[in-house]
Amino acid sequence: MADYEDIPEGGVTTPQGFEAGVAACGIKKAGAPKLDLMILRSAVATTSAATFTSNQVKAAPVRVSMEHLAQGDIRAAIVNSGNANACNGQRGLDDAREMAQLAAKALGLKQQQVFVESTGVIGTPMPMDRLQPHVATAATLSVDSLTAAQAIMTSDTVPKHLAKRFVLGGATVTLGGMAKGAGMICPNMATMLCFITTDAAIDTECLQTLTRRAVEHSFNRITIEGDMSTNDSVLVLANGLAGNVAISDPECPAGVQFYGHLHALMLYLAKMIVRDAEKATRFIELRVLGAESDADAHVVAKAVANSVLVKCAWNAGQPYWGRIMHAIGYAGAAVVEESISIDFNGIPATRQGTSAGTSIEVMREVCNRDELIIDIHLNLGEGQTTVYTSDISENFVEFNLLD
Amino acid sequence: MADYEDIPEGGVTTPQGFEAGVAACGIKKAGAPKLDLMILRSAVATTSAATFTSNQVKAAPVRVSMEHLAQGDIRAAIVNSGNANACNGQRGLDDAREMAQLAAKALGLKQQQVFVESTGVIGTPMPMDRLQPHVATAATLSVDSLTAAQAIMTSDTVPKHLAKRFVLGGATVTLGGMAKGAGMICPNMATMLCFITTDAAIDTECLQTLTRRAVEHSFNRITIEGDMSTNDSVLVLANGLAGNVAISDPECPAGVQFYGHLHALMLYLAKMIVRDAEKATRFIELRVLGAESDADAHVVAKAVANSVLVKCAWNAGQPYWGRIMHAIGYAGAAVVEESISIDFNGIPATRQGTSAGTSIEVMREVCNRDELIIDIHLNLGEGQTTVYTSDISENFVEFNLLD
Repeated sequence: MADYEDIPEGGVTTPQGFEAGVAACGIKKAGAPKLDLMILRSAVATTSAATFTSNQVKAAPVRVSMEHLAQGDIRAAIVNSGNANACNGQRGLDDAREMAQLAAKALGLKQQQVFVESTGVIGTPMPMDRLQPHVATAATLSVDSLTAAQAIMTSDTVPKHLAKRFVLGGATVTLGGMAKGAGMICPNMATMLCFITTDAAIDTECLQTLTRRAVEHSFNRITIEGDMSTNDSVLVLANGLAGNVAISDPECPAGVQFYGHLHALMLYLAKMIVRDAEKATRFIELRVLGAESDADAHVVAKAVANSVLVKCAWNAGQPYWGRIMHAIGYAGAAVVEESISIDFNGIPATRQGTSAGTSIEVMREVCNRDELIIDIHLNLGEGQTTVYTSDISENFVEFNLLD
Repeated sequence: MADYEDIPEGGVTTPQGFEAGVAACGIKKAGAPKLDLMILRSAVATTSAATFTSNQVKAAPVRVSMEHLAQGDIRAAIVNSGNANACNGQRGLDDAREMAQLAAKALGLKQQQVFVESTGVIGTPMPMDRLQPHVATAATLSVDSLTAAQAIMTSDTVPKHLAKRFVLGGATVTLGGMAKGAGMICPNMATMLCFITTDAAIDTECLQTLTRRAVEHSFNRITIEGDMSTNDSVLVLANGLAGNVAISDPECPAGVQFYGHLHALMLYLAKMIVRDAEKATRFIELRVLGAESDADAHVVAKAVANSVLVKCAWNAGQPYWGRIMHAIGYAGAAVVEESISIDFNGIPATRQGTSAGTSIEVMREVCNRDELIIDIHLNLGEGQTTVYTSDISENFVEFNLLD
């Protein structure tokens, strides 16, 4: 075995001791049921870490999961797609708790040991009557990682999952993950969700530190249309079955190595979400360099990446650097117009705030590629960031008209 | 005469002593010329006030006009449409100064007495060779307010102009204005411009105070797609020919009365810009009430008004209050989910953060109207604001694909 291997067909059930089950309850669509319920379980105790949406309007399952996570003994997760269970008041909280309770009962666990997530339409009560009869089916825990990833999809066009295997302090450790999301787009896809499992042994505090850091440099670096969901959550469960010496220091060699793989897995899943952006046609890696601070770089990157007009230009494959300049100008970071350089895939578009003089034919050829790396150099300091985003197509709006 | 009268056919040439001229230079399109140059002149000295874009990337004419305005002796303005003269480096500044010089020469003024504005594509040098031969034609100052308003249009579908006449301290005063803009949309419409003339006598400091205040409560309250132009400018010129006792105190009765009409004129023009929003179908008045502060109210209003997903729901005529809730949640203001109420044209959509239970049929009927008033009540304090915005249609993106 090399230093590590990627397992493309792998996912949350690849690490030792993790199993998943699914069911079709008719939450997404009554009558013609699709998979819309997933249960994930570790056979033994875990350490756990999670990050949640910073939206002040938080879905009921997010609130319940925060409570359960604080107990520190997560053994399973129950997740439905098709209904976000957000903005449903006390009833939403009751339903989220009941979902945890139903899974706990079927698995022989306590309610507080179950993490709950929902994704889908906001403001419509959970159809608990449809969900309840199918919990037992999901609790049979008989499906592979691909099927588990399919059960949490909403507007996603591809399931998103991967496992990684590597040697850590003499033991073979496996890390598996799955994610869903293609934009915070309603009515049936109000969320980015990610579940990561590992058989590594790692203590809770250390896992939380590494999880936060990895999320910050992966999922928090992608933007599709600038909206933040009420349900976004990332859960990491580690059950220690690999038998490595437990990691307790994020900065020790094993901690650094584990972080590298955890971050790579999250970045892979995050990029898959951008590539699956609703109706988008191009993948954009936007790098901001030479800002006065990393924070300033991020402010500029987000303004450019979220500008509808910039996205329109990307969609058209047009090297319209003027739109990027105008978004840089209103971002709110320290910038000096005459110092700004912009490159498209290494080809100079802008120098000293004005046209670099590259021929329009050359620029158009570059801008029509499926993947674009755009470098914005502010030439002011050492601050930098990278974000991953997409264009916006005329089908996007049509796609988002509700029916 | 009533207390005041609106003059629908009026505009910048209605007040005494103001004249305008236009020309078709071929800046917008060589070959089939449309009006794209306008010169406005006061026959006598003026006091002047202006506000400019806060974008750090400022077009050359904005920078030159700031210098000229500081001299305090503005007598004329030269404005072209079809080219924004932004991001053109030193050449852009030279061209903007030459435009002022050409107008000054034709009108017998000094260069510093001429205000310059440009609107159109960013990053393409001004075709001075096309403009220069037509300055003399524009300097004949022989057109009416309607034609002047037409010459500064880019993607606008209707010219935007109005005059108001009222009695102020015994004298009959006229206030005229025109604006252009339908979103900061490229390639040929990178700007909101507004020119206001009046024959009222008012001192410079007082005019600047009232202008800033009126802009804050009109043009700064509209948002179409959340992008801020490199060229936005509002210029107010007052030449005193009405013979009123000069206003020198913004809070004196005459100052308050003048402000009322100035604000009403700006708000009229600002709303016309929103109604002319590119490819939009609905006019939305969004009121945020009960915030902890006015600043918090504005933060919430802007997040909701600029959310692409909220705009999609408005376009579809769907009462999808969940999207508004999610935008409120990520806005960054102090909010308590369980305290939020939302009404559509007075019909309750949301109470205590969840569905108000109004029937979907009633809500849909309201949301399909051409004009919507949406009230968001945070129920936390006394802060409030109103912004005016539009939906976004599937034609918007198509319209913004460059060719």
